[in-house]
Amino acid sequence: MLRALQAKIPSHDYLYLGDTARLPYGTKSRQTVVKYALQASRLLLERDIDVLVVACNTASAFALEQLKKVAGSRQVYGVIQPGASAALQLSEGRNIAVIGTESTIRSEVYESALLKLDPKVTVSTRATPLLVALAEEGWTHNDITRHTLQTYLKQWLSETGADVILLGCTHFHALRDCVEEVVGHHIRVVDSAGPTADCVAAECDNEKGNGSCRFLATDDRERFARVGRFFLGEQLRLQDIELVDL
Amino acid sequence: MLRALQAKIPSHDYLYLGDTARLPYGTKSRQTVVKYALQASRLLLERDIDVLVVACNTASAFALEQLKKVAGSRQVYGVIQPGASAALQLSEGRNIAVIGTESTIRSEVYESALLKLDPKVTVSTRATPLLVALAEEGWTHNDITRHTLQTYLKQWLSETGADVILLGCTHFHALRDCVEEVVGHHIRVVDSAGPTADCVAAECDNEKGNGSCRFLATDDRERFARVGRFFLGEQLRLQDIELVDL
Repeated sequence: MLRALQAKIPSHDYLYLGDTARLPYGTKSRQTVVKYALQASRLLLERDIDVLVVACNTASAFALEQLKKVAGSRQVYGVIQPGASAALQLSEGRNIAVIGTESTIRSEVYESALLKLDPKVTVSTRATPLLVALAEEGWTHNDITRHTLQTYLKQWLSETGADVILLGCTHFHALRDCVEEVVGHHIRVVDSAGPTADCVAAECDNEKGNGSCRFLATDDRERFARVGRFFLGEQLRLQDIELVDL
Repeated sequence: MLRALQAKIPSHDYLYLGDTARLPYGTKSRQTVVKYALQASRLLLERDIDVLVVACNTASAFALEQLKKVAGSRQVYGVIQPGASAALQLSEGRNIAVIGTESTIRSEVYESALLKLDPKVTVSTRATPLLVALAEEGWTHNDITRHTLQTYLKQWLSETGADVILLGCTHFHALRDCVEEVVGHHIRVVDSAGPTADCVAAECDNEKGNGSCRFLATDDRERFARVGRFFLGEQLRLQDIELVDL
């Protein structure tokens, strides 16, 4: 998500918070996710941000309305609406499969968003929790990841008849190539990063800022730097990561 | 661990706390694990427990001394010492392999414990983080788990020459049968549950209590009940699980 934003709006200054002490959010209840997302957002708002992008699908699913309230006049963007909209545009058969964390899938937020956009769409959802651990391990394209994706997706997708699969978890972006290989050419793969960055770019002053980027982590800067490379394409420098307490 | 304790000391009353809002501990720093383990233990101590068993390897690795301080006169047991001792007793070649979470392995606690027991022992360690996610998914004995264990263990174990593998994470107990199958008969598999329960039983009044068992969770009782069956052998009843805030 960060890389997609930087690609569309390179001049902006970015402040990226990873709640590494308490992740993953995708196994937690609505109540806990709302509590943690509010704490994280208050910390970012205190740092004088203009725009808040909620890159986590589970936080977007459970906490977006509450985050908009605490953000006041600042714009808040979640990933659900842009992802749903992009998936629908690509689905000729109006039949979309969504994978995500346990909590995102249980929230039924993608069914709601898609049916609001098109009451005739068919939506099938499935929690694929192991994919988060595979992405964090950096196993983005090995035999085990391929086998896991086949186990989760092959039979299920063929039963749904979907022509689009929406990656409903920010982590899954790291596995995108492997998902494309496993699902085959007749199913299009959509993730929310690009569509969300498009929404932000459409409404922002794109000339603002110096193109800087700082990272905040709630635990273990070394691990954040290391795991970050599977998502950001490069290992982060420790001096760019600040430890914060939530 | 709970089941091993109940088997050895069935009359005791048990209070089991799962910090489900903030798990896993195995990716967190020493500082954060100590903070969370202290909060969890204080809550249990307020409930008038006589004995505190730290069933999590990462919490045992980082926080045992601090937990003993807050426990005062109450006995505190970790899983590292009993597991190390049991592994050493089984290893004829004095050559032991240990797998665990990233944080437990980084702590080097098993090297210290084993070398203290026998300065001539050879110890090899490896972080196998994906096994936690596999156990939580309930994939305790399928092709993907077998393939993952082969990837982590096969070549590494043959290079170490170890004749014992110690499961240095409480979650791995759920995968024990599959580990045994993958490593073959010439390597013995040890986990800490039985040896730790033996230590507790040796020092406790084994006639005390009514054999009751209550569960505390910091988040999402439904998920706790569901995932609990992979570790406890049965699905828990929601009325036996109390939601607590840490």
